[in-house]
Parts: sequence; structure tokens; C-alpha cells
Amino acid sequence: MATETATSIKKLPSLSGLHHRRNPLDENPFFHPSDGFYINPSDVILSQVAYDLSDQSQPRFAYHRAGPRQKIMYEPSAVKAAIVTCGGLCPGMNTVIRELVVGLWELYDVKEIYGIPAGYRGFYSMEAVKLNPKIVHDWHKKGGTVLATSRGGFNLNKIVDAIQLNGYNQVYIIGGDGTMRGAVEIFKEVSRRKLEVGITGIPKTVDNDVGIIDRSFGFQTAVEMAQQAISAAHVEAESAVNGIGLVKLMGRSTGHIALHATLSSRDVDCCLIPEMDFYLEGKGGLFEFLEKRLKERGHAVLVVAEGAGQDMIPRNESQKQERDESGNLVFLDVGAWFKSVLKEWWEREHPDELFTVKYIDPTYMIRAVPANATDNLYCTLLAHSAIHGVMAGYTGFVSGPINGNYAYIPLEEVAQAKNEVNTNDHKWAWVRSVTTQPDFETKF
Amino acid sequence: MATETATSIKKLPSLSGLHHRRNPLDENPFFHPSDGFYINPSDVILSQVAYDLSDQSQPRFAYHRAGPRQKIMYEPSAVKAAIVTCGGLCPGMNTVIRELVVGLWELYDVKEIYGIPAGYRGFYSMEAVKLNPKIVHDWHKKGGTVLATSRGGFNLNKIVDAIQLNGYNQVYIIGGDGTMRGAVEIFKEVSRRKLEVGITGIPKTVDNDVGIIDRSFGFQTAVEMAQQAISAAHVEAESAVNGIGLVKLMGRSTGHIALHATLSSRDVDCCLIPEMDFYLEGKGGLFEFLEKRLKERGHAVLVVAEGAGQDMIPRNESQKQERDESGNLVFLDVGAWFKSVLKEWWEREHPDELFTVKYIDPTYMIRAVPANATDNLYCTLLAHSAIHGVMAGYTGFVSGPINGNYAYIPLEEVAQAKNEVNTNDHKWAWVRSVTTQPDFETKF
Amino acid sequence: MATETATSIKKLPSLSGLHHRRNPLDENPFFHPSDGFYINPSDVILSQVAYDLSDQSQPRFAYHRAGPRQKIMYEPSAVKAAIVTCGGLCPGMNTVIRELVVGLWELYDVKEIYGIPAGYRGFYSMEAVKLNPKIVHDWHKKGGTVLATSRGGFNLNKIVDAIQLNGYNQVYIIGGDGTMRGAVEIFKEVSRRKLEVGITGIPKTVDNDVGIIDRSFGFQTAVEMAQQAISAAHVEAESAVNGIGLVKLMGRSTGHIALHATLSSRDVDCCLIPEMDFYLEGKGGLFEFLEKRLKERGHAVLVVAEGAGQDMIPRNESQKQERDESGNLVFLDVGAWFKSVLKEWWEREHPDELFTVKYIDPTYMIRAVPANATDNLYCTLLAHSAIHGVMAGYTGFVSGPINGNYAYIPLEEVAQAKNEVNTNDHKWAWVRSVTTQPDFETKF
Amino acid sequence: MATETATSIKKLPSLSGLHHRRNPLDENPFFHPSDGFYINPSDVILSQVAYDLSDQSQPRFAYHRAGPRQKIMYEPSAVKAAIVTCGGLCPGMNTVIRELVVGLWELYDVKEIYGIPAGYRGFYSMEAVKLNPKIVHDWHKKGGTVLATSRGGFNLNKIVDAIQLNGYNQVYIIGGDGTMRGAVEIFKEVSRRKLEVGITGIPKTVDNDVGIIDRSFGFQTAVEMAQQAISAAHVEAESAVNGIGLVKLMGRSTGHIALHATLSSRDVDCCLIPEMDFYLEGKGGLFEFLEKRLKERGHAVLVVAEGAGQDMIPRNESQKQERDESGNLVFLDVGAWFKSVLKEWWEREHPDELFTVKYIDPTYMIRAVPANATDNLYCTLLAHSAIHGVMAGYTGFVSGPINGNYAYIPLEEVAQAKNEVNTNDHKWAWVRSVTTQPDFETKF
Repeated sequence: MATETATSIKKLPSLSGLHHRRNPLDENPFFHPSDGFYINPSDVILSQVAYDLSDQSQPRFAYHRAGPRQKIMYEPSAVKAAIVTCGGLCPGMNTVIRELVVGLWELYDVKEIYGIPAGYRGFYSMEAVKLNPKIVHDWHKKGGTVLATSRGGFNLNKIVDAIQLNGYNQVYIIGGDGTMRGAVEIFKEVSRRKLEVGITGIPKTVDNDVGIIDRSFGFQTAVEMAQQAISAAHVEAESAVNGIGLVKLMGRSTGHIALHATLSSRDVDCCLIPEMDFYLEGKGGLFEFLEKRLKERGHAVLVVAEGAGQDMIPRNESQKQERDESGNLVFLDVGAWFKSVLKEWWEREHPDELFTVKYIDPTYMIRAVPANATDNLYCTLLAHSAIHGVMAGYTGFVSGPINGNYAYIPLEEVAQAKNEVNTNDHKWAWVRSVTTQPDFETKF
Repeated sequence: MATETATSIKKLPSLSGLHHRRNPLDENPFFHPSDGFYINPSDVILSQVAYDLSDQSQPRFAYHRAGPRQKIMYEPSAVKAAIVTCGGLCPGMNTVIRELVVGLWELYDVKEIYGIPAGYRGFYSMEAVKLNPKIVHDWHKKGGTVLATSRGGFNLNKIVDAIQLNGYNQVYIIGGDGTMRGAVEIFKEVSRRKLEVGITGIPKTVDNDVGIIDRSFGFQTAVEMAQQAISAAHVEAESAVNGIGLVKLMGRSTGHIALHATLSSRDVDCCLIPEMDFYLEGKGGLFEFLEKRLKERGHAVLVVAEGAGQDMIPRNESQKQERDESGNLVFLDVGAWFKSVLKEWWEREHPDELFTVKYIDPTYMIRAVPANATDNLYCTLLAHSAIHGVMAGYTGFVSGPINGNYAYIPLEEVAQAKNEVNTNDHKWAWVRSVTTQPDFETKF
Repeated sequence: MATETATSIKKLPSLSGLHHRRNPLDENPFFHPSDGFYINPSDVILSQVAYDLSDQSQPRFAYHRAGPRQKIMYEPSAVKAAIVTCGGLCPGMNTVIRELVVGLWELYDVKEIYGIPAGYRGFYSMEAVKLNPKIVHDWHKKGGTVLATSRGGFNLNKIVDAIQLNGYNQVYIIGGDGTMRGAVEIFKEVSRRKLEVGITGIPKTVDNDVGIIDRSFGFQTAVEMAQQAISAAHVEAESAVNGIGLVKLMGRSTGHIALHATLSSRDVDCCLIPEMDFYLEGKGGLFEFLEKRLKERGHAVLVVAEGAGQDMIPRNESQKQERDESGNLVFLDVGAWFKSVLKEWWEREHPDELFTVKYIDPTYMIRAVPANATDNLYCTLLAHSAIHGVMAGYTGFVSGPINGNYAYIPLEEVAQAKNEVNTNDHKWAWVRSVTTQPDFETKF
Repeated sequence: MATETATSIKKLPSLSGLHHRRNPLDENPFFHPSDGFYINPSDVILSQVAYDLSDQSQPRFAYHRAGPRQKIMYEPSAVKAAIVTCGGLCPGMNTVIRELVVGLWELYDVKEIYGIPAGYRGFYSMEAVKLNPKIVHDWHKKGGTVLATSRGGFNLNKIVDAIQLNGYNQVYIIGGDGTMRGAVEIFKEVSRRKLEVGITGIPKTVDNDVGIIDRSFGFQTAVEMAQQAISAAHVEAESAVNGIGLVKLMGRSTGHIALHATLSSRDVDCCLIPEMDFYLEGKGGLFEFLEKRLKERGHAVLVVAEGAGQDMIPRNESQKQERDESGNLVFLDVGAWFKSVLKEWWEREHPDELFTVKYIDPTYMIRAVPANATDNLYCTLLAHSAIHGVMAGYTGFVSGPINGNYAYIPLEEVAQAKNEVNTNDHKWAWVRSVTTQPDFETKF
């Protein structure tokens, strides 16, 4: 039996100026720290589980395993924690907040926990809200974020000044990729100022576009809710003559929700995602496919991820200039565009035949619901993993499930990683097989 | 004890050329036509139950009570029934169709029942579908209409020719006010041609804007589903800084869904309906109210019926010309307009403060669901009432609940009656009390 | 035009020692008491809308119409209101409480409103809870009753002593038929003691077994939820060989929930209710029917109201003695009994064939949900009607919808009236037609 | 960088008498077998991803990765596949069947696919049903199994005779642990008879008690539905005086559903599972805990897995003898037992105080629902993995997710592996922390 390449660990930054002390879980009446309860620094989660064993040369990586450590680096009574939520809504945000509060309080006896209102700008422009388990008790049953959220407002110096001024020594940042990039900067600035502040990021993206981790919280709830919209589109399409049900689903740069919702529903005739080009006219194009489908079945359901087809939508002068806070061209509404081009097409080709497009944009009805049971549990484990890591002195990290196990990942790595739909793999092939939609790869 | 004014009955047309025969329910193993089972011509439903007894001069009207008659006018084996659905979707359409089919078959032994596809035009341009209880068995669990529907296509002569050609002698027409007006014309033309064809209309309007009857089918399901959209709007608004959740609900000329959904939810800050004028700027205006509400609570939820504010939305030249099939100016999207004027207002008044409007249009997700239990039962009784009436020889009528009891109403009367929200009554006052929204009656 | 018999009004008791004063709604910024807004003593709701016009001799009754009066009998600042909930849970209880509180506060400026905890016994054994609109704000979204409830505990003198001692001059009693009979006694004792205390009852019975009123609150929600149980029973039965899905639904003396749920679902093969006798063995019996159904379809769904077949279930000695608080024999579990007799029957008749009975008792999962939108609105109008009546000086009454309009009914009349399923009418005939279940009327 | 211990692969049996041929996916218009599309025999999934890197001596195992192979072993037109479902219901069974049918048909052009009705006994006592994509089209939207199922009926020779007689050369067996043990025997007998029949097992256990694989299908749907029952129990308990809400959840030998439902809900005061002993009386016992909780909060919610406390329930003589088909003592109803001991306890300790236990058994309402979106997708991937494996010539295996990736596992290994709740790990500790329920480990 041959030996294999050794596995290297992705190192995490940690706070250096603090002292070790016993984990209060030792005394917690509800925990029995038996052998194996505490995680050692050498406990890792492999980054990859699918291997070609015939190729021993692949480099192997691992992440530190998440969980409580025997020694922690904070005196519980000296902890002052801040929690902030940034960006758009996502099912489960309130569960994460709730579990950070309850976890810090119950597991580690931390009593100074503050909610920063309304995103990054809340650090320097609003008053923080003191939180405790009683206040947050039912938050996991509510959609949205009780702390409120906003986009933008990232002013590095003001934020770190506020952290310093208020004496926060643990900061939990819940947000999307932009927010995570901000968290990296905060982590760096905090380090530069030699502040002993643990910074951790909790990636929130209903689109599931974050890399490295298995999936992001709220995603499964979103796929569940998307069924309702697809179902309505299907009914509308079926009840009309030459009826098209058009559903726009969330997914700016990735089509995971569209893909999963299509597979679960099986009522979709065509699923378009940002990772895949498509074209409308001519042989092998969408119109030809829809024409055929309407002939055969009298109706069709079209699911479009919001980021699909962005380069096909004509932009007026102002739209050519307008950029979002990250400097990217603003997104145009692919659903509204589709509705109009479909109508034009039919008008042109079949001026005397009935035709109906019903366009459903369920975005806010999806993202504003509370997390379902699966996501709820996920959020709980996520929050606790984050707490254990911060208490152990790690900083500049993210916790998340990797191959089904919770691990700690350098924040910078997560901020850059992207989880795109692989249009060459079996799942996408199965979408195509279910829908029998065109290939679009070879333009005829 | 003084006597009261006599009650006069609203007469119904009936087929004259047919012969009385025993009702087959006499032999039906599941019915026991005991005393009082069969309805007599003198059995009526009072049109009004709320009286001022001190005023004896009010005229009193009554409608024929719906239900099976001792004698029917059709030989079951000679019946050829046609069912058609017209206009937009509404929860319960499939239940009505199902129950017409199962009711005709099981109650009266009628075996020739046809579904006309795709609305009025289906009579002369498509092939009818033969229906039986097995085919329609699970239809009540599906949204939409399996028969398919469309707007327009009303060609009186072609339709009546088709009825004559195919030998249909019972026609069940399910549709909105336009469809009912069409049914009146069909009824008249059929009478003119001296055809012995029973014509009955089943009003379908999710907006609940039909007069005389207590409420229309699907309405309660729609109010139920609307809660979900309001709830999402509330979460979105609460999770933002100066967040407005904006929901457009169905209701072109009447605001019943908006009113009922607002009362049931109690999360709405302002409810705008077509029956009520409102204004945006100045003292007592909407902006002033929202400004105050955002100051106090940080968020607000706005529910707008689709027909509200139509005369306030600027129309471009083509929109000034464009008219729908009934000759009315086309409806503009009050939701999209509101979203833009709210943004402009805030930008102008508070250029440096955060502000968010999340606009939800749940229309298709509401109207495409199956009927809930309450509406399901309603649709059943509606369909059976219609069948009993037609079998008894009535024609040119509508069946529907009046003061909680099913009655037969002249089709023409229903086609003209309008059920508007009475903004002087207690229910609307209670909406205002719940929302504490402005009066808008006196412009300052 | 002949004259008709005059209508006589059902008189209501009213408080005599109080003075008239203007209704504060006159000054309420959200109400515009225009003509017709206030209800006059001569405004009535007819007790009957279905008439045989050929018979002019029927006596005609009417109830006072519910709604605000021009003059009220209480000085708002002198009102001290108590609200109590008794008996089992029912969807909508919290909405009724919420609306009593918010209505008294917003409509009539009443600020002294108390919740009596845990039913009648709470009057004399627990401390009342002061309520206001802020506290009750979200109660309509919760199942059960936040005030808590209990059965029994009715001690007339202690209760009236407590009312007197605490100075409550308005008492709102929410409960079932036993509770209503208690309310009658409280009303009488209060009158005997010459206390100026308005007593009103709000009938709560998920079974819908209260007479006179159109239906009781929570009933429609219950029918809705029952679908879920029937659906599960149907799936279990269909997935087995000779599978029987057995569902017990609420309904001790009446089968309304079973009847409505059966009609809405259409997946039920047999529906048994207390109003109808049935038998198991022999020709025309249940076993014969089930045998046939299993042969034909391989499965059957049986819905049983909890009060059905009580006299068929063998009682042991202690069960023969045991009586409930009203002195009736205790109810036995008809579902468990059915499960065992079905198994014995099959074992006896078909010892070698597979057979499965899956028994579902969804009672608590049904009655603990929040009211749906329809019931929610109903509860609102119910609470407000009650408030308007009490403020106007009426006492010993119940408010409720009669023929679709809210009216005031003498409490004593409601406490005695029973709403049973009429097994001779069309609705029950239609159940039988849908299920094609046996007649059971003639035992062969 | 040190080297690590080599990984050994868990070998799978495979059919030897067949010939390799090209995979028809090469020609499938919807698949683009690019590099890496086909899985090689050396592609594996590691059995373990959490390692202690400081210990290099641990043995390392891996399973063959699931997915399509470049070469297959069946001529598609010669395949005759049989699908059977055994045991109790579980959400997703119909999706698995549907995807086996659609997958075989669309991916591999297999047209001879048969459903065996009613479990193992269906092989030799009933007629198989021919299936195709059209028939199964909507099955994923239905709960239960359209094929029907039953327990027992395992007659090895009759089953293998039937396989031989009917010429089935692929057999897909969906069922629980007993069924999997039967599948092992079928696999062995088929091998003994030298039949070229691929046998694969698809573990179905709503309890999630199968080892090796990450989780079983339907489990997440069950946890989701369990929330509804816990929620109702919570409302019932809160609305009573000293109210206990008691919920029995599925889980005969493992408490996964109870554990996950408790964590997701957070309304549970005590969660009892088979993996953990508990006691009622005395210091540290359940009664003491409940007494305290009722004092503090007035109510408590108790969740019990059906297998918990089986050795504490007194058995009468017949129950001491009665054994199930696997020879184990029959299960007694822990819910009913709990209800009675709780009542006795309170009666004894607090004869004069109110007390209520509401017992909810949601079993059939949970397991009869259709799979949610997450489970739906899982079932799809499961079915396709099974097909790819069988077509590639593997037999006597199970497909399932291991560390998030689909793998092939020897059937025998799965039939023996047990997935129990680890009461020493963090998840169980967190349950205890959420509920603050007693330890029960040290009896005082």
C-alpha cells in the first residue's frame, strides 16, 4: 500500500496579546466535555473528499476544524461583542443573530453583546442595541433582520474608530461578498492598530455564490419558496392559449437557485443562468425552442436567474454609465426585458394568434421568509462555530461547512472565492435533460 | 302589530318549449327527497335583511330560491351541456367546472358534457373536450382552469351558430363582468332564434366586484394569499432604514381585496383603493403621513389596489389612446408609478438619508392557487345551484348566495350590478382606524 | 300587492341606571359618522331570509342590528372592562381579545381593560392582567389564547363578588355553550344585585354547534386545517394494500367540521356524524360498504366526528359512571374504537389478507393554529359589534352574524340554541352523493 | 512534508458475465461528456474528512464515487428493470421511483421498467405495473408511494424465482434496514444462481438511522413538518394552567428527528431519545424538572422519540410475548404511557391544582407529505447514482451521499451500519443547553 501526499493546513490568524484560560464549558451543567469534545489545533477538515486515487500528486489541503477549544483567550466578563448585518435580506439572518447572542451568553457567560443597527454605517452613525437571550428569544421565527440592514456605508476608519471607542473586542459581521471584503479590511486595520479584537465573517448570500463552503444559509429556504412561484407560473401558462410563465429568480452571478428550483419542480421548460450564454433567434435559439414547445404542449415555463443575459439587454446612455457601489454596471431587469422581447417576437411571427406572457418576480416574497428547519439548524451551528473560534483567539476567519463538517477558513480566502454553477457537470446536464432545453453552446 | 309592505319577486326567464318530467333525484339512492327538499316557485330569498322597521314604505324584493325542483324540463339523455371559462384566473374555477360535470352526471344522469377550450373563441375555433367525473376528479386541487381561458373572442353570431350546430342545450358560462354581458347577448340571441337552450352565468371575479351576490368565489382565497405578500413587505420594510414595503393587490374598480387583506393583516400603514381619492403632496397628503410614520417607526407598509390613483399617473400619448377591449383606457401600473414617485419625493426632501422601497406584485401568485376549503365548498354549491336551475328550465340567470342563501338572479341584473367598497361604512372606517392613514377627503 | 305579517323584534335587556351621552366616534378623526352610520333601535336584521311567499302566516322575527349607536351609556373614563376566555382552544380567540382591547381603546377611549386569566376561576383565584393595544398588537398571529383558559371553575357567587369587588362594569365572556349558560347566570345575578354591569357573550365553538348565528369563529380555519389530515389519511390508505385512512375530527354533538371537510376534500369514502345513526354489520352496514370499496379501489378514507357512534362503543363500569362537568356521560374515543373494530372485522373475515388502518387524530394540530384571514376578519367584526352593544347599554346579549349581517341576540336564546346538521337537506345529500356511502336509515 | 497512510477502497461486487459497451450518454443531446464527466474506478470519496493530522496511523478508507461510467455493461434494449418499495411511508419515495423511471428512460434508453406493487410480496403475488415517464410525471408531488408498500412478505425463493421468471436483470429495492437485509439475501441468492442481475438498495428511513451515508431521504421534510406539531403543543401548553404539550416523534432506535426538531423549534423544554436513559422520580428526575418548569413558566413542551423509554413502560403478559417480524419485542406507545404517568404524578402531588396534558402524535401527518425541495433534489441524485452504478455493472451496492458526495457502498455494510445520536457530541449538548433539561446521567 503506497503512501500519499501529506496534507497541509490553511493557517488562521490569531490574537497574540491574550492569555489562555480554561473553557467555561468545563463547568457548564449541560455539557460533559468527555474525550474528543474539545477540538485540537491538529484537528482538520479535508478540503476535498473526491479523489482520483491513481493520481497521488495532487496537493492536499485542510482547514482547522470548528468547535470548542480546551483553552480560550478571553476572560468572559471582559468580552464586549458586536454583531452587524449588511446587504440584502436572506432567510436565517435573525437565527444567526439569535444564536450568536444566546450562544455567547449560555456557552461562555458573555453578557455584553451589542447589535449594530442598519449595516456598516450603524457603527459610526447609530446607537448600538444591547441584546440578551430574552430579547432575541423568538427572532428565529421572523424573516429579515431585526437589527436592520443596509448596503454601503463602509467607511473603514470610522468603523474601526467606533470599534476602538466602544471597546468591542469581538466583531461578528454577517453579509455578502462585498461585506466580506470590507471585513478583511477591518481585520487588517484592526491588526495594524494592534487592537486585540477578534473579527469573524459569516457569509450571507441567498444566491449561494460563496465558494469553499458547502452552501450558504437561507439557500434551501429560498429554493423551497421558489417552488411556489414556478407553480403559479405553470398554472398561468397552462390556463392560457400559447401561455408562457416567466419567473425571475435571484442569482446575480450564479444560477444555483434557478438550477435547484428547476430540478425540484420539474415543471420548467427552460432554465437560463448567468454561467451560460444563450441566444434568441435562429436555429438552436430560444425562440425556436419555445415555438416548438408551444406547438406540442400549448404552454411553457421559463426560469431566468436575474444575472442571466445581462449583456443582451440594450442599455440606454444612463444605464451605460450607472454603476453600483462596487463599480460594476448596474443590473437590468432581465424579466421585464424577456417579457417584452417575447411579445415582440410572437407579434412578429404570429400576429394573429393568441399569446400570453405572465411574469412573476417573487424575489421579496422569497427572501423575506423565516428560515426553514434545515436552514435554522444550519444557522445555529454556524453561529456557535463562529463563537468557539473567536473565543479560542482566532481572528480574520469565517466558519462554515466543508464537506458536511464545520471548519474555519481564512476570511480573505472566502472573500475571493466564487461558487459558480459548473455547466459541465451532471447536475446541469440533468437540468438540460429534464427541460430538454437547447444547448446554446454551438450557434448554428 | 302593523302589517308590512308585500314582497315582490324578481322574475326569471324560462324555457317554454319543453315538457315537465319527474326529477331523477326521486330515484337517486343518495337523496331522500323528504318534505321541503324540493324548492317551490314561491320559495324566495329576500334581497335585504337589514331593515329600519320604522319605515314600512321601502319596497321589498326577493329572488327565487336556488335548489332542486320537483319537476324538471329536460330529458337527461337529451341534454348536451357546454361549459366555458373566460377572462383571467381566479381560485376555484376548476372546482366549478368539476362540480358542474360531477353534478350533472351524478344528480341528473347527464352524460353529454363538453368543455369549451380557451374562452368564448373556443366555441367557434377549437374542438370541445368531452368531460366526465373520472377526468375531472382531482381538478379542484389545481389552480387555474384546465379548460384554459382567454379574454375577448366574443363573436355573437359565431358563438350562437356553434351552440346551434353542436346541439348544446345547456350552456354554463364562467367569467367576469364583460363575460356576463356577453352571456346576456347570447341569451337574447338564443331566445330570438327560439332555441331551447338554457343559458346560465357564473360570475368569476377575484376582485369581488359583482353586485347583488354576497361575494364571488376565490375572493377569500385571494385575501388569504395576500397576507403572504403583505407579510414579506412588512419584513422588508422593517429590516431597512426608512423602509417602505409597497404591495399592489388586485382590484381594478373596487378595493375589496386590499381592504380585507389590510384588516386581516394589521401590518398595513396605509391602504389605497379606487373608491377613494387621495393626494400626495401638502398638508393631509400621503407624503406627510409617510414622513411622520417613518420618523416614528422607521418603516411603513403601503397597500394599493391596482385601480387606485389611475387618474394621477401621467399618461404618454400612446397610453392616452390605448383602450382595452371594453373601450376603457388601459390600466397603468400603479405600483411601479408609486415606487418612482416615492423615490423622487425622498430624494428631493431628504437627499442624504437612506430610503428603500420594496415593491411586491403578488398578482399571479395569488390568483393561480387552488381554492381554499371555504371557497371550494362555495364553488360546489354554486355549481349545483346552477344545474338545478337550468334543469328546472330557468335560463338567462345567475345563481349565487344572497344573505347566505343561494338564489337565482336575472343575468342582466348581475351583469350591471357593481359591488363597490362603501367608504362611509364601518368596515372602511375601521381600516382607517387600524392604519390611522389620512382622511384625504378634505384637501387642505 | 298583498300585505305581509308584521315582524316582531327580539328584545334585549339593557342597563337602566346609566345616562346617555354622545358617542366619542363623533370626534374620532378616522370615522365620519355620516347619515346611516349610527344604528337606530328600529334597525333590525331579519331572522329568516328564505320564505315561502305563498304562506303569509309564518311569524316573522328580527334581531337588533349590531353597530355603533348615536348615544352611549358609559362615560369612557369610567369603564372598567374584563375579558375572559373559557373552555377549549379555537382559532381566533386571540384575535377576539386583541380586537376587544384595541376597539375599546381606539373607538371609545376606554383605558381600563383587564384580562382574566385561565377561565372563570381566574375571576376569584388569579390576578387580572392589564391590557392595552401595544401588548396585544401581534396576538392575532398566535394560536390559542394568551390569557390562558380552563374548563369548569364556575362559582357564580365568587365570580360576581369579584366583578363587584374589582369594579368591572363591562364583562366580555368568550366560551362554548357551557360558558354561555354560565354567562346567563352571571347576567341574572348581576341584575339581581342591581349592578350596572354590561355582560356580553362571544360564542366560541370550533364545532360550529351554536344556533341562530351563521357560523362560529375559527370554524373555517378548522375545516381548512382538517384537509391536511384527510390528505395524509388518503396517502396512507392509497399506499397500503387494503388500506383504511381513519380521521377523527372535532364535533361532539354536531358534524359540521366533518361534513365541510368531506365536501372540500372529496377524498373521503365515508363520513360519520353524531346526527346520524349507523351500523357496522350486515346488509347496508359499514363493513359491507368498506368491503366493496376495498375491492374496487384498494383503499378507503373514513372521517368520523368525535361524537359519532358514542352509544355503540362498549363502556366499562367506570365509564358508565364517569360524567363530565355538565353531568353528561364522558365521551369515549370513537377513533380508537373504530380502529380496533375494523381490525377485528378484517381479521375475522379475511384472516389471510393484508389490511392496514392508519388512525389520525389532528385535533390539537387543528385547533391550536391562528385564525386564517376570513376568520380573522370575522373575529374583528364580532369584537367590535360586542363593544358597540355594550357601550350602548345593552346587556345579557351576544353579537353574531345572522344572514350575513351582525346582530344582537339575547344571551339566553343563544345559550339554548343548537346548530345541528340537517341530514335531510341538500348539503348532507351531497356528502352522501360524493362519498356514495350507505344510507343507514333503513336497517335491512 | 511527511507522507500519510494510504487510502484503501471498499470494493464492490460486479456482474461478470456481461460485456462492455459505450455509454449512450455519449450520444445524448443534453449531455456533453467533457473531460472529467465520466467517473473512473479510481475515483473515490473519502469515508472520513475530519482528521487529527497529528495521528498518521489511522486507517483510511474510501468508497467508489458514484456517477456515469464511460463503459456500461448492459445493452439498453435488453434491460428489464424492477422497482419495489417496502416498509412504512417516507417523504420522497415517489420521487425516487419517478427518477428511476425517468432516469433509466432518458439517460440510458431503457424502456422496460416495472413497478412491483405492495412490497416484497408483490414479486410473487401481484402483477407488476409497466412504468414510463408519462405515467410517473407528477409523482414527485404526491406523498406516499403510488406503487404501494407493505411490511414483511419476504420469501427469498419466491422472490428470486419471480425475478428469474420475469427476466428482470436490474432490481431497485427501496426500503428500511429490514428491507436492506432482505436485499443482501436476494443479492446472494441471485449470485448463487449465477444470474446476471444487478441488485441495488436505496435506504429509506425517515428516522435517519442508517449509517455511513450523510442522511436519508425524507428526513429533512419530516423535521420541517414536526415543527407544526411542536408549535401546536406549545400553543396548547401555553394556553392552559400547568399545561404540558407532549409530542411523540418518529425514531424507534434513534432520536434524530426529535433532536433536529427540538433544535429548530427552540420551544421544547425536554427532548427524550432512545440513545439516552432517563428517569422520572426523585432528584434529577423528569418530574422534578417539570415541576420546576411549570412553577417558572406555567407550561412545558415535551418531545419524545417513539423508541425512548421502552424499557420503562410496563408490559402485560401478551406484550411480553409479542414480537415483530424481526423478532424484537413490539414497541409500546410511549406517548400514551407518558400522558398517563404525568397525570398520575400530578394527581398524587398536586391533587387540587389544575393540570393538562395535550398529547400529539403527528406521525402519519408527517410521513405522508411529499418531499420538500431539498429532499426532492436529494432523491433525484440518489436515483440517478443508483442507475449509473447498475448500468456500470455494479451490484449488491447502495448509493448515497458521503461527506456531501455521492458514493457506492457495499449493500452488506449499509444493512449493518447504524446511525445513532452521539450523546457526547456538541449537537446533543446544545439540545441540553437549549432545553436546560436534566442530565439523567448520574442518578442521585
